[in-house]
Amino acid sequence: MIRDVSSGINPLGLPDSQTYLNAVESDPRLLGWMQGLPPQPDKRITFESDQFLDFPQIRWALSHMRELAPTVNVRRGSAPISQIERDDRSHDIDGLTFDALDGRTMRFEDALYATYTDGIVVVHRGRIVYERYFGALEPHLPHALHSVTKVYVGTLAADLVSKGILDETKEVPHYIPELRGTAWGDATLRQVMDMQIGVDYTEDYENPQSGVRAYMRACGMRPRSGNSYVPDTLFDYLRTLRKEGEHGVAYAYKTVSSEVMAWVMAKVTGLNLAEYLHDRIWSRLGCEEDGYMLVDPVGTPMAGGGLSATLRDMARFGELIRREGDWHGNQLIPASVIDEVRRGDDPEKFAKTGSDLLRGYSYRAMWYVSHNEIGAVEGKGMNGQRLYIAPDAEMVVARFASHPVGSSIGNDPITVPQLLALGRMLRE
Amino acid sequence: MIRDVSSGINPLGLPDSQTYLNAVESDPRLLGWMQGLPPQPDKRITFESDQFLDFPQIRWALSHMRELAPTVNVRRGSAPISQIERDDRSHDIDGLTFDALDGRTMRFEDALYATYTDGIVVVHRGRIVYERYFGALEPHLPHALHSVTKVYVGTLAADLVSKGILDETKEVPHYIPELRGTAWGDATLRQVMDMQIGVDYTEDYENPQSGVRAYMRACGMRPRSGNSYVPDTLFDYLRTLRKEGEHGVAYAYKTVSSEVMAWVMAKVTGLNLAEYLHDRIWSRLGCEEDGYMLVDPVGTPMAGGGLSATLRDMARFGELIRREGDWHGNQLIPASVIDEVRRGDDPEKFAKTGSDLLRGYSYRAMWYVSHNEIGAVEGKGMNGQRLYIAPDAEMVVARFASHPVGSSIGNDPITVPQLLALGRMLRE
Repeated sequence: MIRDVSSGINPLGLPDSQTYLNAVESDPRLLGWMQGLPPQPDKRITFESDQFLDFPQIRWALSHMRELAPTVNVRRGSAPISQIERDDRSHDIDGLTFDALDGRTMRFEDALYATYTDGIVVVHRGRIVYERYFGALEPHLPHALHSVTKVYVGTLAADLVSKGILDETKEVPHYIPELRGTAWGDATLRQVMDMQIGVDYTEDYENPQSGVRAYMRACGMRPRSGNSYVPDTLFDYLRTLRKEGEHGVAYAYKTVSSEVMAWVMAKVTGLNLAEYLHDRIWSRLGCEEDGYMLVDPVGTPMAGGGLSATLRDMARFGELIRREGDWHGNQLIPASVIDEVRRGDDPEKFAKTGSDLLRGYSYRAMWYVSHNEIGAVEGKGMNGQRLYIAPDAEMVVARFASHPVGSSIGNDPITVPQLLALGRMLRE
Repeated sequence: MIRDVSSGINPLGLPDSQTYLNAVESDPRLLGWMQGLPPQPDKRITFESDQFLDFPQIRWALSHMRELAPTVNVRRGSAPISQIERDDRSHDIDGLTFDALDGRTMRFEDALYATYTDGIVVVHRGRIVYERYFGALEPHLPHALHSVTKVYVGTLAADLVSKGILDETKEVPHYIPELRGTAWGDATLRQVMDMQIGVDYTEDYENPQSGVRAYMRACGMRPRSGNSYVPDTLFDYLRTLRKEGEHGVAYAYKTVSSEVMAWVMAKVTGLNLAEYLHDRIWSRLGCEEDGYMLVDPVGTPMAGGGLSATLRDMARFGELIRREGDWHGNQLIPASVIDEVRRGDDPEKFAKTGSDLLRGYSYRAMWYVSHNEIGAVEGKGMNGQRLYIAPDAEMVVARFASHPVGSSIGNDPITVPQLLALGRMLRE
């Protein structure tokens, strides 16, 4: 049953030796994962097995995180749902063709399968023009955002800076004395928000020895049992990390800095991230469903990638950004905060990562800033999660996926040109 | 700090040797449980410590079950909230006096503290006449119902019987062949629904060797680690239980029979209990918040006691029963199903348990039937959870509590006369 993905569509950069079922073959309904009373042993997806984030189990798991691990609610509250009008353009969009970075010409719809899309919604000029669900995802089911969580953190952090509640020039220990002597001991909040921290920590999703795996165990996203020393709490883990190199010199993606930022925010707001998301976003955007966040053993929400939300609720947040913080007449976030994100940072600092896939990008307040012709800013998460806001095309794309490859190398060769082509089409 | 509860109010039947902080002293906000970033080690409540259901940790934990263990959503959907009108009678009710079973005269309000109440709402003639929250509970927070979960199961099971989808005279293996040779191998559905099953399983919450503890481990309510053999799934655990004595002779409270009933229901409906509660109850009653259920390692909702809901949403279900299944013109459950519950069963079968506290009661479709002067039927759960419906007083009482004693021996000596006195007052 295992097929070489290259027999179908082979995104540039996928490890040659690795083969995967394609998106249709790996549909969890087709495979029978977690069906039956109880599911047969070879169709079970359990947290303790530590295989729920493996492929193809991940195709079910990302729509069912709360059934696998403890979570805290991100409550929508009792406000009416903000309905999004519709203007269906599926036919045009499905047939749109574009050139993937490996040179092949692809149809938009085929690209959804090639990137193992679980769901996608496209909002143009405030109306839903395209919406599809695949595999285990349903419109009312929250799906893991993974690191798209970070753009919520970065935006709310920048908002606190704009209000003067946080001082971006202050060093982290000003707010969290417990982080003296750690990697963040002499880092400014601005450096943390922009991921310009020199820290001895690696972010390699495929390597079980990587720092990100230890981080995931500490914050409850992977089982603690069967592993060597795991700190009692996420905060205890952060305190083990030491400085390596300099701060402020170059962008370097380190999820742990998002946790530091959320810790700072919780200190000054008195609310943990789940409560703050309720207060600032969920209760104000007319979200359709509650979201939720994975928590560490003492209830700390996982700010680096623990949020799950419905596809349309993620799109609502994207629309808030596209509208420069205005939500039907209420300025929820100052336009200046979002303008600053859109201006981005020095692409030279970003280029030092050596990414060929994101040429010309910069990174600001936990957003990827494309500096492309449609002004796109992006939230990106493992396995293909994406929130793509292109103000100059009046477009927001929210996409969930369960790509076998964690790193965006698995789908950027398709997704980057795909979404740019969509923006070009829609702005006309 | 540990005080003898008898220095305040000593409910009849509490173990003499045991002493507890009283309700005010054990308020989790006062004690600082789970406060701080992160909480101090001696103020942490974690799942793995297996102390979260101990007192006083339980005073926080029962309002935060999802942050401790995996859960599945019981979705309210997008229907409008059914608002319940108010007609405040707090002053009258707080001052109501009654005689506890140990002979002392108590005020209604004092009884709330004596039973470690987390929240109580009284609905009379369809209006909220009394509503209070204590400790960690808030109106929007779901709280563990523990075994009040069973009245949802029993009511929906009786409804399936009334529709002819289940045949109460059939034996369990007719629906679940996997249970041949177990305690339920020759038990009828009616015997299961009415807890008249002879099974080698003990239900002693204070005894770590009791069957109920093994059950809790199997279904994810207590940690599996550090224990001897724990079956992989809840269903595997049920299959280990053997018959002891006869069926149909006497009532005997065995939580595992609720799980068997829910397994049967899932077989015929194709929906697990969380999905079925959404479909039949939550989506139709205009509930305010989603509920949720604890799940076993393969996602099976814990039907014997895994439901959490807000206080008012539990009261809505009580109102549905009081109104004989009619919800604002929609007959959600046939009146005949509820009439049958109210008629109850033979009190002689119930009396064989030797309960002095519930004299004259019977048990039907997982409801306690009081046969008292206000026609009360009750759902009861560990640590003082209670849903009390008194049709002849047009009254519903929903109460959450975190009493140090799991068994109802801890609060029945107060609660039984308290609620009867309230019903007498309100019917006038």
